[in-house]
Amino acid sequence: MSVTIKKIAKDLQLAVSTVSKALSDSHEISAETKARVFEYAARLDYIPNPYASSLKKGKSKNIAVILPEVADSFFSAAINGIEAVAQEKGYHTMVYLTHEDIKREQSIVRECRNGRVDGVLISVVAGDSLHEHLRDLYTNEVPLVFFDRVCEPIETARVVTDDHHSGYIATKHLIEQGCRKIAFLTMPGDLAITHHRQQGYEQALRENGIEIRVLYGTDREEENLAMIREVLQSADRPDGIIGSIEKLALQVYTTCHAIAVNIPRDVKVIAFSHLQIAALLNPPLTTITQPAYEMGKTAATLLFRALEKKQDVKHEHIIIPSVLVARASTEVL
Amino acid sequence: MSVTIKKIAKDLQLAVSTVSKALSDSHEISAETKARVFEYAARLDYIPNPYASSLKKGKSKNIAVILPEVADSFFSAAINGIEAVAQEKGYHTMVYLTHEDIKREQSIVRECRNGRVDGVLISVVAGDSLHEHLRDLYTNEVPLVFFDRVCEPIETARVVTDDHHSGYIATKHLIEQGCRKIAFLTMPGDLAITHHRQQGYEQALRENGIEIRVLYGTDREEENLAMIREVLQSADRPDGIIGSIEKLALQVYTTCHAIAVNIPRDVKVIAFSHLQIAALLNPPLTTITQPAYEMGKTAATLLFRALEKKQDVKHEHIIIPSVLVARASTEVL
Repeated sequence: MSVTIKKIAKDLQLAVSTVSKALSDSHEISAETKARVFEYAARLDYIPNPYASSLKKGKSKNIAVILPEVADSFFSAAINGIEAVAQEKGYHTMVYLTHEDIKREQSIVRECRNGRVDGVLISVVAGDSLHEHLRDLYTNEVPLVFFDRVCEPIETARVVTDDHHSGYIATKHLIEQGCRKIAFLTMPGDLAITHHRQQGYEQALRENGIEIRVLYGTDREEENLAMIREVLQSADRPDGIIGSIEKLALQVYTTCHAIAVNIPRDVKVIAFSHLQIAALLNPPLTTITQPAYEMGKTAATLLFRALEKKQDVKHEHIIIPSVLVARASTEVL
Repeated sequence: MSVTIKKIAKDLQLAVSTVSKALSDSHEISAETKARVFEYAARLDYIPNPYASSLKKGKSKNIAVILPEVADSFFSAAINGIEAVAQEKGYHTMVYLTHEDIKREQSIVRECRNGRVDGVLISVVAGDSLHEHLRDLYTNEVPLVFFDRVCEPIETARVVTDDHHSGYIATKHLIEQGCRKIAFLTMPGDLAITHHRQQGYEQALRENGIEIRVLYGTDREEENLAMIREVLQSADRPDGIIGSIEKLALQVYTTCHAIAVNIPRDVKVIAFSHLQIAALLNPPLTTITQPAYEMGKTAATLLFRALEKKQDVKHEHIIIPSVLVARASTEVL
């Protein structure tokens, strides 16, 4: 049986309007009556329609986290950081996945307007310069915080890592380990983080008079494996590869296993990665580890400052450094 | 500026009530007028308040996916299967994480009542026998489909894999590879899937006159590593270990690397896992691979049959078999 305000009114011998006002915490109703109504409503497990009450209160107690994917270990760690904060604040976290599709991102962001969620944390899709949907959110006064992947033209709070510097130290590490033909394996498109990593890579190479060589992957694993195989079997095989994306670095591993190219003897590999089991791979993978959990936690903390304290956090740009963890894949044999 | 029905009415020189009826696709309004109104509303990027229209239509076009975590590769693959179906149907998927906490599961499920979502796919938290919150959902006529982890007392649609048989074939495989001291590494609690796997393990051992040895892990990684180390350094070290949970099997790997116990020479390891990079581990890990993507896709398909065609799917119990993939971690040297 559906429990309604009518039933509460009848059982407590109150007017329906009194119950309704009590439940919306009206000043017209005495504290004593409110207490009776709330207690009874709770006992009956009466749940006010969230849509109806959201319309009035403008509080959904939900935040949205919009991500490209969860198969990536970076994002699953970031979610844990976000939820640690949201849970403490009594909010639910709803995770939406864009699968790198700008149409889905637009549609999801559209969903987030008009009260369904109180705030949005987003890591934008790669390779797209459309951003009107994000500006809309912004002008509709839904607090918005970027983490990891930002949309540069939108001026709002952001939590990122130092991608340029990370690209630089990854490349310096390979040079120090003796590499002189270093390829940068990345995805095409205009995603800021991979651009910044690539700029750091190019800077380190220029400083050392080494030729720049950028290889582009695709969304299709088969194509990538074929491309990597061709590169590794060619006469001018690189002696070092930087995977700007975890997935691409693992495809280098798969190819090396398949064609018996030895890591690190024939080619050294370093990856931007948050893979927890990097140390269990054959060989253990040297990583530039992003502070995923910390980035999620910091982004959520900024969002709640905007939500709860109505603080203007728009101009806060927080950079949390990544860490190079050297393992056997870049060892000098 | 907020675009309202009033503005549409004014600009198109129609009555407000006409615009309102047109937008709700009323039969009182001509097709021509509806077309004009929709076209203009779309041009203005007018979005009907989702709460207000949900109240009327009872359709949120959202489904909820409730999971223990996403760090697990099984669940991230399952999400992809679910989204493949949801996207085709024009629904948004909202992912909620319980982190194995029954209080969070209860609170999230409560959120899912009363119109916020049209249906729920859930893989329940481990180790708890409370299930009134699921029954509530059910009696509130929100379609509910279990996948992978089911709550046995709730009679509704479910998509699972053959955990008993998988536990049996995993154990048989180790026996065939020469193991005679086989430990089953699992978590305590009353999660049906690990129970079923354990029952299959015990059946295979009984059939072969081998002693049963069950080891229990905890949520704390440090404790598990210490426990596994003690077991591997003891006089009666097992010669085979079955990880009923991916994370535990990887902790066996970490320990073996740390104390130089050789897999597969000293101990053979097999894991229930959906890890895509199992083949890249040192050594490549033999897995019982669950059909995660297929399970997600099938569960979502059942849910949409209930949602769109109002079919009664409550009694559908679908079992999709898992597959043993033998790799070096169980090789005979």
